[in-house]
Order: sequence, then C-alpha cells, then structure tokens
Amino acid sequence: MMLSNTINPGLDGVIAAQTRLSSVDGQLGELIIAGFPAEELAGKATFEETLYLLWHDELPTAAQLSDFQAALAAYRPLSETALNLLRGAAQARVPAMDALRMAASTLSLQPGGGLGNDPRQNALAVVAASPSIVATYWRLLNGQEPLAPRPDLNHAANYLYMLTGQEPTPERVRGLETYLNTVVDHGLNASTFTARVIISTQSDMISAIVGAIGALKGPLHGGAPGPALDMVFEIGQAERAEGYLRAKLARGERLMGFGHRIYKVRDPRAEVLAAAAERFYQADGNMALYELAKSVEQTAVALLAEFKPGRNLQTNVEFYTALLLHGLDLPTDLFTPTFAIGRVGGWTAHCFEQQALDHLIRPKSVYDGPKDRVWIAVEWR
Amino acid sequence: MMLSNTINPGLDGVIAAQTRLSSVDGQLGELIIAGFPAEELAGKATFEETLYLLWHDELPTAAQLSDFQAALAAYRPLSETALNLLRGAAQARVPAMDALRMAASTLSLQPGGGLGNDPRQNALAVVAASPSIVATYWRLLNGQEPLAPRPDLNHAANYLYMLTGQEPTPERVRGLETYLNTVVDHGLNASTFTARVIISTQSDMISAIVGAIGALKGPLHGGAPGPALDMVFEIGQAERAEGYLRAKLARGERLMGFGHRIYKVRDPRAEVLAAAAERFYQADGNMALYELAKSVEQTAVALLAEFKPGRNLQTNVEFYTALLLHGLDLPTDLFTPTFAIGRVGGWTAHCFEQQALDHLIRPKSVYDGPKDRVWIAVEWR
Repeated sequence: MMLSNTINPGLDGVIAAQTRLSSVDGQLGELIIAGFPAEELAGKATFEETLYLLWHDELPTAAQLSDFQAALAAYRPLSETALNLLRGAAQARVPAMDALRMAASTLSLQPGGGLGNDPRQNALAVVAASPSIVATYWRLLNGQEPLAPRPDLNHAANYLYMLTGQEPTPERVRGLETYLNTVVDHGLNASTFTARVIISTQSDMISAIVGAIGALKGPLHGGAPGPALDMVFEIGQAERAEGYLRAKLARGERLMGFGHRIYKVRDPRAEVLAAAAERFYQADGNMALYELAKSVEQTAVALLAEFKPGRNLQTNVEFYTALLLHGLDLPTDLFTPTFAIGRVGGWTAHCFEQQALDHLIRPKSVYDGPKDRVWIAVEWR
Repeated sequence: MMLSNTINPGLDGVIAAQTRLSSVDGQLGELIIAGFPAEELAGKATFEETLYLLWHDELPTAAQLSDFQAALAAYRPLSETALNLLRGAAQARVPAMDALRMAASTLSLQPGGGLGNDPRQNALAVVAASPSIVATYWRLLNGQEPLAPRPDLNHAANYLYMLTGQEPTPERVRGLETYLNTVVDHGLNASTFTARVIISTQSDMISAIVGAIGALKGPLHGGAPGPALDMVFEIGQAERAEGYLRAKLARGERLMGFGHRIYKVRDPRAEVLAAAAERFYQADGNMALYELAKSVEQTAVALLAEFKPGRNLQTNVEFYTALLLHGLDLPTDLFTPTFAIGRVGGWTAHCFEQQALDHLIRPKSVYDGPKDRVWIAVEWR
C-alpha cells in the first residue's frame, strides 16, 4: 500500500468501510437502503420491517415479522435504575440527548440483571428501549408520570403513545415510520463511524451505540432540523416569502434547511419526506402550513441560485423533517432524539457488519511538538 | 488531493490528526509525552502535573498546581443519581468498565444540576470523578459501603484510599502515579480516536469520554493485562520458566504480555514500569515475585526469538502493568478501569486539540449491495 505523510484531519475521501446497508450518491441525489431506493421503501415498510431488512438483508415473512415485533416489544420496559436515572436527569433539566445517552448506557443492566454479551439481544434492547427512554424523559421533564409501553402497538405507534397517552391514528404512525425509515441509515456519517470504531475493538453493542448517541448530539452532525421550520413560521404567508428571504440573503445569513455537505442535487430524503408530509397533512393536519412550506422552499431554492450561483444549494432533509415532525406534534427539542430513534437501527446493523469483519480501526497521528524536554521540579519553575 | 477507491477498513497508515500530546515511535521504542520522553516524566510527575502539562503544554508553577489540584478535588464527589446508578449496576454485577461508562455519562448532571457546556469544567469533572466511580463501584460490588473522597489527598492517593479506606504509603502513590503517567496518552489509539470523532461533531466532552470508555473496553484495544501475570503465577519458580514456556509455544499458544501492533522493539512503557515496579517492590512488596517476573520475561523473549524468528516479539506494557498493579493490591478486574483513570487525561487533552481544530471527522463507505430491489407486501413474501 502506498502511504503518504499527508494529514487528513476530516478523513475526507478515505473509504473506511464496505457496506450492504446504504448507498448515498450526492451527485445523483440517490439514497439506497439495503437494496431499496429510499422512495421505494420508506413510505411502505414498518420500522420493524426496515430494521429486519438491515439486520438480515431481506424482508421478513409474516411469521418472522411477528416474532421480531414480539422480541423487540419485550425490551421496551425500562429498569428501575434507568427510571431513577431519568428522574435525576429531569431534575437537572439536561437536554434529551444527554438523557438518552445516560439511560441507553444502563441497558447493560436489563432485563433483571446483566444483559449478557449476545450482540443480537443487546441490539434488540437498545432499539426497543430508545423510544421508551425519550418518551419517559420527556414526560418527566414536563411534570408528567411516565407511561408503560403498550406491547399491542408497533414500534412507531408505541413511541407516540408513550409520549402522549393517546393511541395515534394510522396516518400519524405512517408519517413517523416514513421518517424513521428515511433516516435509518446514511453511509458512514460521524455517529455511525463512531459506533464502528468502538465495536471494532471487540467492545459491546451498548458501548458502541452510546458513543454514537454522543456523536449525533453534535451540531455539525446535522441533527438539528428545528430552525428550518422557525423560518417558515416567521414568514407566515406565501407572498411574504420572497421579501423575507431576499433580505436574509442580502444580510449574508444562512438559510437553514438548504445545502448539504454531500448532496449537490435535491436530497432524496427531502422528496420522500415531502410526499409523506403531504399525505399526512391532507389526512390529519394543517394543510395551509404544508402549502406555505412548499412555497417557501421553491422561493428559497430560486433565490439561493441567484445569490449563490454555482453552489447548487438544494433543500435538505431537515426542511421536511421539521415539517413532518411538527405535524406529529413533536416539539423541536425532540427532533434530534427522534432522529436517534431511527438511526439506532442503522447503528446496530453497522455494528453487526463491523463485528463480522473483525478489524480494529486505528489511524495514526503525527507529532509536532518537542521531544527533549527536561524535568524541572516544581520549586524551580 | 489524490483520492483512490481503495477500501482501508483499519485506516492503516492514514494520518487523522496532528498532535502535541504524544509521539509513539515503534521502531525506536520511543514514547514522548507532551515533549518529555516517558522515562523522563512518568516517574517524577504527579498525575495532576502530567494532566496540567497535557492541557497547557507546560508544567504548572507551584501556585498553578495548587489551584489545579483544588479544582480537580472539588469534582470528586458523586451525585446521588450516580451513586444510585452504581448500586443498580452492582446488583446486576456488570463489569467495572460498564459501570464506569454508565456513571461517567451521568456527570452531565453534577454538580447539583447541569454541568453546563464549558469543556474545561466537563474535563475536570470526568478526570476527577473517574477514580471515585471505579472505587465506589468496586466497594459496592464487594458489599462494602462507598467512601467519601479525601480532598487532602492527591489524585492517585485518593483513588487508593477510596478503594481500601487506608491512606496509601508514598511508595504506593508513586507507583500508581508512574503507571497513570505512563499510559496517559499514546497517539491515536482507538479510544482516543473515538473521543476525537465524537467531539469533532461539536458534541460535548462527557459524550466524547463516554464513547472512549466504550472503546477502551474492547479486548483488541489492548487493555487487559491480567493474563500476563497469571502466567507468572502459574510458573511459580524461575527454574520452571523455560519448560513451561517451551511447552506453551510448542502448542502454538500466544504468550500474553509480549508483542505489540506498533512497537517492534521493547515497549518504552515496559521500561518505565519495570523501574517503578522495582522501586516499589523493594520498598513495599514481594521482591521474590518481582525477581520471578524479570526471569520469566528474559526467558520468554529469548524463546520467542527462537520460536518466532524475525517477528521481534518484545515485552509489552501489559507485562509490567500487571506486576505493578498487582503489587498495589489492585485485583485484575480493576486493571482496565485503572488504565481508563490514566487515559482519560489524554482523552480530554485530545478533545481540546480537536475542538481548537473544529473539523468534522467523516470518512466514506462504499456500497456493495443491489440498488433496485422492489417492495413486496408482507402477505406475498
């Protein structure tokens, strides 16, 4: 292998994994999830089907799906230790992602003792319990008692139920499932890479996922879709969009919800989420808000082409994520934790891939300091 | 930049960071820590001095050191939430590294509320509290009530005190400090790299360290020095070493404590630890065990040259780590957590470096699956 001494602090262009889980082509605007174009899969599969697909590289039969749903549902209840921890976290009012990271780490304790080392059981536990953790924490933070999970509801429906105490409509469940499927995996993003680095040491699944949650927290990961919708609210009416956006761009401000490090055409996830949002808002939402958002999007893309020619700044996944999650009555503070509830499916699947590979990930550093310092006792400094 | 399509699953030879923290030269057997050869620094500095050196690139004056010690000591007490979590973990009897990961994650809660986002305060908290967590968990696991930290003792002395309830002798403190200094940083190992990937998303210090703890847990990280000493115990007498080791090598078994992915000559850390162990065992230990270990080492290196010619398998850090930590009465189960108590100093320093760089670490993956799967409803599968 040819080695160079070039420092590549972002690992830009370095290929660190071969995967069957997802393919992201930013030039074509193409996202493949385990062989399916995202637009073929996301609006049809339950989250359980997508998870099974990622883990097994095929869709489950009816019998397999039923067993898989039951296996997941069994891991939804939280341990007393996790519940007490979340009460402490709610008192300190930490961000929900911190609470998720803390409580996910305790999953090594359940059920009723050590979870053991079986990666499959660990993965089931962390995927199944993540919605329980987020919903429980959110209720505690808002002075409400947590709700027990409902084993008769599927994964997405149970999350909405545990947040609100209401059984959600099928349209709402479908809307959330489409979102979770859309964000379930996306190549080697920083959180997925974190999980692979950790599990590459032959550490355990919970350690890997806890690390990934910590990485997803970071603003540079791209997990903060709130501001895109704030802009739509501020604009308020379609005819005000152009004036508002022109003034913002003239001041040199960034438009949240547009542009992506990878996608140079419209983010394919935006397409899928726009379709899901349209169906959902038509059945069960504020259609005027949806129309306004579409109009703001069109104006923004046109103005970005005018103000930043050649940059090709297109709508990214955050714009329609915000619209969809807002329509599901999820507050902005739950957007990133809900992203995590989807992405944990991809993280676990990447961990299985990395475990099968069994290859430590360990790049190098170069040292640029002195080498011959001499000790001076504290009284002479 | 020239890019290739070569998949590099271990990132072998890729330079992901430039650092002033440590330099590892496996050909020369040289380890530099913030400008000092390890053998110049490790046996002289307190752990607080080494930590200050890594964070500030210079040794503290007497006044700076006194302030720094006090700032660290203030973060030693654990929150009620962390204590309750450790009680739950002790009931489930999880490994101490899991307990450390869980409780370290709760440090975002202390002191008396959210820790806030100041990376320096977060770093002080996680370095200071790590020994408290490990000692508290160990006592709970063994049916003993935890002990409050002693602010009048330094970092290393307080750890030994919190484990045993005895104020340690100066020789024991010096032995532990030498160990902690020796392992405080070691280039871009997998746990340090994990911390840098997480913080590169602009996530917080606690998230980064929790991820690193998870990576350090993995057997491939090289954090399990127990078996090296087990072999010395089994051999029992110097004159049995050659027969025992010859038989083991003839059966094709690996000798734990010898050989390293990076060092092709004697690991310089082994040298430093051997000297510390010698001083320590002479003052306050079982000198016969020390002599036996030296003799086993010499025989093993000679036999490895005979059985594996050209491989250059030398004593690694694990061999003398085991001898030193055993002499401090640390049980094998605490070896990796004690490694973490040292390495957290390097992790935090790397996080500061990475934060100053502010550059997302995000390599690529290549997809090797199909792209045109078509949805089939569950009843037709």
